[in-house]
Amino acid sequence: MRNLNEDTITQAVLARHADMSDERLQEIMTSLVRHLHDFAREVRLTEQEWEQGIKFLTETGHTCSDKRQEFILLSDTLGLSTLVTAQNNRKPDGCTEATVFGPFHVENSPEHALGDDIANGARGEPCFVRGMVRDILGKPVPHAMMEVWQADEDGFYDVQYPELDALQGRATLHADADGTFHFRSIVANPYPIPHDGPVGRMLAALGRHPWRPAHLHFLIKAEGYETLITHVFRDGDPYLDSDAVFGVRSTLVADWVRHEPGIAPDGTQMKVPFYTLDYDFVLNPVSSER
Amino acid sequence: MRNLNEDTITQAVLARHADMSDERLQEIMTSLVRHLHDFAREVRLTEQEWEQGIKFLTETGHTCSDKRQEFILLSDTLGLSTLVTAQNNRKPDGCTEATVFGPFHVENSPEHALGDDIANGARGEPCFVRGMVRDILGKPVPHAMMEVWQADEDGFYDVQYPELDALQGRATLHADADGTFHFRSIVANPYPIPHDGPVGRMLAALGRHPWRPAHLHFLIKAEGYETLITHVFRDGDPYLDSDAVFGVRSTLVADWVRHEPGIAPDGTQMKVPFYTLDYDFVLNPVSSER
Ligand SMILES: [Fe+2]
Ligand SMILES: [Fe+2]
Repeated sequence: MRNLNEDTITQAVLARHADMSDERLQEIMTSLVRHLHDFAREVRLTEQEWEQGIKFLTETGHTCSDKRQEFILLSDTLGLSTLVTAQNNRKPDGCTEATVFGPFHVENSPEHALGDDIANGARGEPCFVRGMVRDILGKPVPHAMMEVWQADEDGFYDVQYPELDALQGRATLHADADGTFHFRSIVANPYPIPHDGPVGRMLAALGRHPWRPAHLHFLIKAEGYETLITHVFRDGDPYLDSDAVFGVRSTLVADWVRHEPGIAPDGTQMKVPFYTLDYDFVLNPVSSER
Repeated sequence: MRNLNEDTITQAVLARHADMSDERLQEIMTSLVRHLHDFAREVRLTEQEWEQGIKFLTETGHTCSDKRQEFILLSDTLGLSTLVTAQNNRKPDGCTEATVFGPFHVENSPEHALGDDIANGARGEPCFVRGMVRDILGKPVPHAMMEVWQADEDGFYDVQYPELDALQGRATLHADADGTFHFRSIVANPYPIPHDGPVGRMLAALGRHPWRPAHLHFLIKAEGYETLITHVFRDGDPYLDSDAVFGVRSTLVADWVRHEPGIAPDGTQMKVPFYTLDYDFVLNPVSSER
């Protein structure tokens, strides 16, 4: 354990972990240390570059608050989130696919009744969303718990407004006994991920844009089914093929239909144009083969 | 760029970096993304484990302040710092070896004259340090700038005392025209790296102790020579073969000689026992072959 060089250090660190009782942690640390060291050897990382890396991680940590998660942004933009989502959510064809969680979910989003306007003051053109939660045979899944969250027409989530205390454009809903749900909100628009921090500077250095195609986030739970974390993407969006976080799946792209003023699906007389989105979610039973 | 899975995501991310102008950054990001993804695939990282990782990094960032650098601790304890130090400091035999920088260096440590007591109130048994800065042929290197820093007898650096405004146990010195230097300080003792934060919890989970063998830090600069960042370790220390940060090199281990009360090397009449440390530093010319 003395006189370690860039080649012998790896085995020395792993030897220090030889007697661990937690086998899974040992497996993870072994792979992590190997890949971390291989990376540094492969590129012959210099001391100055190491310092820049320490500085970058420190700034990323300091950018995290109860309202901002810069490490999730980093994971998202490096494709790690999509990788982890994909390898943990293999499902039979026909089930709704999962995609990245993103950094803008909050715990305890406000409870709303079906039919409510969940925008709660968020600015944007009105949009009426409806659909059904069902299983792969088409059978309704009753009373699924659904969390929905989205950005406003300026591309910001509620938590991105430092002055705003209210929760806007997010809700917890419960689908009906027949599996159906409907609510009013605002239309989704493309937005740049927060790019005034370290991850934004990284994207700029990499020559990458920070935009995500328009989408609506869903988290759906029902007893007996795997929890579904996904988005519905808006067809026609210019960023569908260059999502900054690599989350787009063709089966999640849907048509947001624009309507002239008139009667909305829920009977509301609309004096302004509005949109409708129809989308069904198909859940995977927990017992299914993976 | 749609429907990416755990295998196709890596090429998709790298394709996004294809047009970068900074070739070195591209090389680093390519290797980083590959190894990060390979790690997550190899261990089949779960979504819950990913969440724990995000939480760990966030807490590590929040533990960093102007007085604490938890990401350097993380790099040190995972052996990355020793790897980077080793691969960037290959030198001819006979030159003083480098070791890890550590998280406790501060910019602008107080200037002291040769012979000063640099403890400046730090508690510990007195120690008189002397030596020479020379080149590999034995020729004195005149007027080298030397930064020295160390922990007190309780194992804490000055910056670890939240209430302490003073800088203690650290100094900037200038060796004489004949290459010699001497100063008074306190004896070095083993200490645990700060283990009340995320890195300490990681070490505990890995079944590892947080101790470092007793050492004195040096950073030495002289025109025409490579900057030397190193420690002198104290012979006989129980942690020399299990340094928590893998930094020990045999050539850096020296004898701290204990003396009964009497006359110190600088002529001071000591009424208490004291130590002496004699150590010469050999610098590598910047022009030397590596
Ligand atoms: Fe989003
Ligand atoms: Fe130290």
